[in-house]
Amino acid sequence: MIRYELLHVDAETGARRGRLHTPHGVIETPVFMPVGTQGSVKAVAPDDLRALGAQIILGNTYHLMLRPTEKLVAKLGGLHKFIAWERPMLTDSGGFQVYSLAQARKISEEGVAFQSHLDGSKHMLSPERSMEIQQALGADVIMAFDECPPSQSERAYLEQSLDRTTRWLARCVKAWRPEGPSALFGIVQGGMHEDLRRRHSEEVCAHDLPGFALGGYAVGETPEAMHAGVGFSAPLLPKDKPRYLMGVGTPIDLVTCIGAGVDMFDCVLPTRTARHGQLFTSQGKVQIKNAKYIEDEGPVDPKCSCYTCRTFSRAYLRHLFVAQELVAMRLNSLHNLHYFLHLVDDARAAIEQDRYGEFLREFRARQV
Amino acid sequence: MIRYELLHVDAETGARRGRLHTPHGVIETPVFMPVGTQGSVKAVAPDDLRALGAQIILGNTYHLMLRPTEKLVAKLGGLHKFIAWERPMLTDSGGFQVYSLAQARKISEEGVAFQSHLDGSKHMLSPERSMEIQQALGADVIMAFDECPPSQSERAYLEQSLDRTTRWLARCVKAWRPEGPSALFGIVQGGMHEDLRRRHSEEVCAHDLPGFALGGYAVGETPEAMHAGVGFSAPLLPKDKPRYLMGVGTPIDLVTCIGAGVDMFDCVLPTRTARHGQLFTSQGKVQIKNAKYIEDEGPVDPKCSCYTCRTFSRAYLRHLFVAQELVAMRLNSLHNLHYFLHLVDDARAAIEQDRYGEFLREFRARQV
Repeated sequence: MIRYELLHVDAETGARRGRLHTPHGVIETPVFMPVGTQGSVKAVAPDDLRALGAQIILGNTYHLMLRPTEKLVAKLGGLHKFIAWERPMLTDSGGFQVYSLAQARKISEEGVAFQSHLDGSKHMLSPERSMEIQQALGADVIMAFDECPPSQSERAYLEQSLDRTTRWLARCVKAWRPEGPSALFGIVQGGMHEDLRRRHSEEVCAHDLPGFALGGYAVGETPEAMHAGVGFSAPLLPKDKPRYLMGVGTPIDLVTCIGAGVDMFDCVLPTRTARHGQLFTSQGKVQIKNAKYIEDEGPVDPKCSCYTCRTFSRAYLRHLFVAQELVAMRLNSLHNLHYFLHLVDDARAAIEQDRYGEFLREFRARQV
Repeated sequence: MIRYELLHVDAETGARRGRLHTPHGVIETPVFMPVGTQGSVKAVAPDDLRALGAQIILGNTYHLMLRPTEKLVAKLGGLHKFIAWERPMLTDSGGFQVYSLAQARKISEEGVAFQSHLDGSKHMLSPERSMEIQQALGADVIMAFDECPPSQSERAYLEQSLDRTTRWLARCVKAWRPEGPSALFGIVQGGMHEDLRRRHSEEVCAHDLPGFALGGYAVGETPEAMHAGVGFSAPLLPKDKPRYLMGVGTPIDLVTCIGAGVDMFDCVLPTRTARHGQLFTSQGKVQIKNAKYIEDEGPVDPKCSCYTCRTFSRAYLRHLFVAQELVAMRLNSLHNLHYFLHLVDDARAAIEQDRYGEFLREFRARQV
């Protein structure tokens, strides 16, 4: 299982430099985790991810349980072997996609009944079923099955949902095999309400789990509200355990929430935007299809050392995107992943040198 | 410009082992050239092509003249620089796609007027215009502008077309700058008629060009007819110049036509079939989406050393293809390109050892 080592806390902010020891190797934190939804980080291969320095990737339980199914993955030796990724992996509980993707969803005390978005087939996700699937997949970190209500939910609904998520966590803990390879993280919900966040943190952290996560952020609220919420919630989590902010976020989200003491992030943003031709650079966002790049011989980002920037001009990348060449998806994804991964590399270095406050302010000042 | 060195002719067959010296490096022949239609070999990047050992790739004049336009490519330093491919390149004349893709096509003595398949814009390709475009792109080998009539054309039409192609060749030669970096190849047509092939070979080879090509094969006739035709036509070409069979072909086509003395091949087959999940292997074709591969832990081809076969199971590749993951396009393309490139590597080795006849018979016997 995993072990978290807190190496250093920045002198000015709450930023933490740590190390997460897992059965598939050591993760230097803070860490950004690319999302491999269906067992593949879209448009890139494991060799690309290794070259980019990705330390850990995600798999989505909802997608994998439907196709190819966790039974098949387990039969073929587990998720690491199936997708040929020998570094650490994390799977989510399936809950988030059940709420956002599945059809005919029905929440009860037992769990969530739903129909597959692929073929309408009927399924049930419950704390026990989510633990069963995730332990069959065999990721290094698995997540508790929770409800993630929309950010604009009524307080009364949120309270009811929190109670149920707390009861579901107890069932997850019971269904979890701590002697196995997968470390269970609990998830704190509570929307934008500080009292609910505090109450739920206490309930969740009452379980002595290997790590804890903040859920229910980046689900529709403003970035400012999210940053304030995480600024309040992250320090409520145990100092000696890794803290994972689920589904976040933009570069400014990462930099801000690292300052609040978050250790782990995941988001589809770098790969999804890449497929739409939006590239993150040290000088702001580049929409590669823009006509102003037609004759642009420069790289996407002159400060970037990724394969795409080392090799190709904006003019060529624009041509590939406009001509709908498949390789554009890979080259754009490599660049954006490099940007996110190296942003967090830089954050780690800044924490080590006790200059994270300065790093954060400089990064904010550069945002347009 | 280029220089061809004939190193060895197989003792039994007409197979030739040669070396083509170009401004961008040496090409060992026989050679298979992956097709980079719009300035990109679909789904793979230059780093992939180098790792695969691709010696030379193609660009399509028709596609590139329309988008991004040869003017832009020339302004940005030529096709090699634009697409970041420092090894040799060849461009076709644009003729073939004008006949197969363009709209409202009208052939006259001047050339071919047509409308772009992209936006309906009006264009003209003529011997002079094709030479202008190809020399602006700056490939190491450029092709004469010819007409490529369908295989079932009437003999009367073919004769008329041949005469025009001969007149067009004289105009191409006039518009070509032999002192530049691009070597012009003439193209012999004549359908399946041996007398027309002989006559046109004489007309085309009357020009002392750096190389010669066979056009008008693999345009609808049976493989047997094509093999017989090439078996007749290839030896009519000068021994001291490279011989290029355009748009061919399947593995058996390559192996057979190498035996007839062909040095260069290009075809979209490995990349196009890869995108449809059809993989070439030492044991025959694999349709990766087939249900029999659902639990198959073996590689696509146990005898293959490509990245895809070294890394992933058939079960995972099937999952990626069925789930429509973008990376499937790259992994399948890498495998098929590796198959084609290594087949020709093996052919070269067999010629060097004077066992090409045996190689050819064994390969034919393995075909199902």
